[in-house]
Amino acid sequence: MPLTLYSYFRSSASWRVRIALALKGLPHDYRGVHLVRNEHHDAALGGEAQQVPGLVLDDGTRLTQSLAILDYLDEAHPTPPLLPSDPVARAFARSLAQDIACDTHPLQNLRVLRHLVGELKLDEAAKTAWARHWIERGLAVVEARLGGSARFQGRFCLGDTPGYADCVLLPQVFNAQRFGVDLQPFPAVNAVVAACEADPRIAATHPSRVPDAE
Amino acid sequence: MPLTLYSYFRSSASWRVRIALALKGLPHDYRGVHLVRNEHHDAALGGEAQQVPGLVLDDGTRLTQSLAILDYLDEAHPTPPLLPSDPVARAFARSLAQDIACDTHPLQNLRVLRHLVGELKLDEAAKTAWARHWIERGLAVVEARLGGSARFQGRFCLGDTPGYADCVLLPQVFNAQRFGVDLQPFPAVNAVVAACEADPRIAATHPSRVPDAE
Repeated sequence: MPLTLYSYFRSSASWRVRIALALKGLPHDYRGVHLVRNEHHDAALGGEAQQVPGLVLDDGTRLTQSLAILDYLDEAHPTPPLLPSDPVARAFARSLAQDIACDTHPLQNLRVLRHLVGELKLDEAAKTAWARHWIERGLAVVEARLGGSARFQGRFCLGDTPGYADCVLLPQVFNAQRFGVDLQPFPAVNAVVAACEADPRIAATHPSRVPDAE
Repeated sequence: MPLTLYSYFRSSASWRVRIALALKGLPHDYRGVHLVRNEHHDAALGGEAQQVPGLVLDDGTRLTQSLAILDYLDEAHPTPPLLPSDPVARAFARSLAQDIACDTHPLQNLRVLRHLVGELKLDEAAKTAWARHWIERGLAVVEARLGGSARFQGRFCLGDTPGYADCVLLPQVFNAQRFGVDLQPFPAVNAVVAACEADPRIAATHPSRVPDAE
């Protein structure tokens, strides 16, 4: 087994990498790391589990950070590509992914929500309002870009095949649903999500269908 | 003038792009957008000012998201490179940049600190404690990686020439200093910062030396 993925079923950063591996058709060993049970801090599981997602290569090299892993997979296993070939189109795909991965998801992930409750003493409603606020802002940026540019015509974020930005957008929308965000204002986003869900390779990576699903 | 950079002197995401342009030796027109005065929401300044940093190409195409811009510059203007050529080494450079750009900086940028004060009613001390907490966690991850891996030997993050990860690390350390973070626990980070500050191309991009400096 050449690749080992350390993943948590509900981690959207992990899900990005699961989609990329599925689109590339790359076989891999799947290791669930339970973030809510703090297994990523369990020394007995070894350093590989400390940051999720982690991709361990056949020589033992461990790669971290989901977007860096997506770029690595596209460079080491170029077919089928996740990114288009034109540098400007590549920048659009990456920037759309970063609208989520830098501006949205970091504000609503597990460790931040834990800090809001544990340190700032936010109650459940205020915690959910915080998550919704940043997710709605992030999806509004993506919606405006997807709906307003000829670059983003097609069934997926860029064109008619799923790629880099789709790997990032689908898991963010799943999180939006978990936090009860109203998705009606985001028709272009919803259309891309529907296209992703209709792709059996992507559907098989859903949090409900991975080995550590609960 | 082929390129136009929309930047805010104190925005660390803008600074990343300023460093990259300087290392590439790419001439560009500099436009200051004052985030604290909300100029990025000023319709009179046009759409180009809405997201900082923004890089406008000679055909009017506007690129956003600092890391996507770094990758674009490396693809469109390959010499000198920001990223190494080996896919695994590229993944290490990108993941180090993302330890900052995804896991650290988004939690302490202007809009989030404004939200903490305006919506959650945090006082100045609690706001600063929040920023310090996430910056310290982020720098601890970078320090462990820089100090613990043979991949990161050299004066800069990867080797003896500045590149992709350095573009991101230096501005984050500047923010750490603004928030009063104790940098003593981060000797490997401090060594990279010293190397960056000693490079006259990088030094010329410092927030105190750009046209909109205050």
